[in-house]
Amino acid sequence: MAILQYQGCYISHTASTVGRIEAEGPLGACFDLIERDPYFGEESWEKAESEMVHRTLNVLLKKAAKKPEEIDLILGGDLLNQCTASTFAVSELKIPFLGLYGACSTAAESLLIGSRFCCGGQTKRAIAFAGSHFCSSERQFRFPLEYGNQKTPTAQCTVTGAGAFLIDTEDDRGVEVCEGLIGRIIDNGVKDANNMGAAMATAAVDTILRYFDESGRNAEDFDCIVTGDLGAEGKEIAEVLLKKCGFDPKGRLTDCGMLIFDREKQDVNAGGSGCGCSATVTASHFYPRLRSGELHDMLLIGTGALLSPKTVLQKESIPSVAHLVHLRRTQK
Amino acid sequence: MAILQYQGCYISHTASTVGRIEAEGPLGACFDLIERDPYFGEESWEKAESEMVHRTLNVLLKKAAKKPEEIDLILGGDLLNQCTASTFAVSELKIPFLGLYGACSTAAESLLIGSRFCCGGQTKRAIAFAGSHFCSSERQFRFPLEYGNQKTPTAQCTVTGAGAFLIDTEDDRGVEVCEGLIGRIIDNGVKDANNMGAAMATAAVDTILRYFDESGRNAEDFDCIVTGDLGAEGKEIAEVLLKKCGFDPKGRLTDCGMLIFDREKQDVNAGGSGCGCSATVTASHFYPRLRSGELHDMLLIGTGALLSPKTVLQKESIPSVAHLVHLRRTQK
Repeated sequence: MAILQYQGCYISHTASTVGRIEAEGPLGACFDLIERDPYFGEESWEKAESEMVHRTLNVLLKKAAKKPEEIDLILGGDLLNQCTASTFAVSELKIPFLGLYGACSTAAESLLIGSRFCCGGQTKRAIAFAGSHFCSSERQFRFPLEYGNQKTPTAQCTVTGAGAFLIDTEDDRGVEVCEGLIGRIIDNGVKDANNMGAAMATAAVDTILRYFDESGRNAEDFDCIVTGDLGAEGKEIAEVLLKKCGFDPKGRLTDCGMLIFDREKQDVNAGGSGCGCSATVTASHFYPRLRSGELHDMLLIGTGALLSPKTVLQKESIPSVAHLVHLRRTQK
Repeated sequence: MAILQYQGCYISHTASTVGRIEAEGPLGACFDLIERDPYFGEESWEKAESEMVHRTLNVLLKKAAKKPEEIDLILGGDLLNQCTASTFAVSELKIPFLGLYGACSTAAESLLIGSRFCCGGQTKRAIAFAGSHFCSSERQFRFPLEYGNQKTPTAQCTVTGAGAFLIDTEDDRGVEVCEGLIGRIIDNGVKDANNMGAAMATAAVDTILRYFDESGRNAEDFDCIVTGDLGAEGKEIAEVLLKKCGFDPKGRLTDCGMLIFDREKQDVNAGGSGCGCSATVTASHFYPRLRSGELHDMLLIGTGALLSPKTVLQKESIPSVAHLVHLRRTQK
């Protein structure tokens, strides 16, 4: 059995911070913090990203009325080289820390691992988080912002945002992580770093098919099947591939990268991407709807394109991964 | 209780690959594979590093007589931006993969997380691994090799090596992961990227003291207390700090970075470092001695300096972390 079963891993609280463009998008009203200054009051994009994660973690602790010393474990990551946005953000909290790198799948990865630690009673509370920043990502992965390069239509817009989840084994507020499925690396040969949706689509499809094959469930058992950041291009490819493989998502397939922006009104090309995309949308759009009872069961399939600027320059393909998390209401 | 208890997490096999300088060091005879070509037959340092990890994983599977489909989970990481050495190495195995970033503490981190998944019966077998390559690290973190810059005496030499561990819940061959302690990020203000030992020493001390405080054990309960890659400078600082804090390691403190090279005969300054340092030394030097009964109990304290080239240029300090793994003989 590849599907992991979790018990007692309640998500008691979530928190999110986003930037201006995300705040102006269709989900703008649902985020906890909005910062219109892309520097977040700091002097570099990297420090801005770290400050954003830091604020998000502090909001989470405040919402949960918990002190850092009441948290047993914090785990997460970001897109910066050596994941420094996370490291510096977490540093002063003095909570045992596990650094993860799953590219844009990091939110799902942190929920999978954090919940694993919380099963079995040894770890009572864990914070899972992920974040990304448009400006630090552009600078690191693409071009200096000042260069003002044109984007291709398949390119996506890195979300400036951080999302955090408190997994609390002693505080059932109606939502739990009940299942997980760790993704396999799938490399379909796509080499275009401006089309990461196409690279990640096969990984998402692989994980979705593995889950439904093994669980015996069908799409109708879920209110929504949510991919992380396939964007318009990747989502379309995933839909075609799923159909070819005989799986009908029954209209339940949606994508955080498509939800966070209005592609008609906002200049975001194929949609949102980045660790912060699925982290913020899950934390602040889907989680409250699970809490309220509007949703009962959802699958989050965090998608990650595991490229680096160097592998792109070396003309390598883009290996991708997709981790699945089943979030469920505990009260029917 | 911060110390994690593990049950039934047997390390059934290990494997390692190292480069020429490591093979010429005092532990040269113990590694599984030695490759004298720093390119590992590839055309870039990055591909070389990936090939090295790939070979190590294949040797591990061969030693254990297991096929990739018999492994439920593989997890690990490296020092390259976006951890691409690991991603590309793992890609064709099609084993569910969790990417980690713990800098040089990654081997210990992967053992901690892999063993957590293996507790409870849902995950039968997991491979934990970590690797680093001198040339790709120099190029990424410091200077082009061709530049031939002089190193400071406190600088360490990144180990070209990869180590992998098969955690098998059904194959007790005499060694198990029985405890773990996740490190907290400690930032002591050291900013010198050529003195990572000094940055990491306080993190190692923090974790060692937390472990002995909580467990009530003392140093004599262990055959050795092994830090990952503090090197000569960091080990000396750690010893002074431990003494100041009233903890006597009773001569049991040793460091993988000091063991892998002969600092008198080899031009390695303060000793070895990198993810591959503690991974290879634990896999191929300590593990066989636990298997043979020469050792019964050891603590591995994987140390990681969570800097990036960018944070160094931005004059940030070096946050560090140290994860502890208690390895024990199952037969007394």
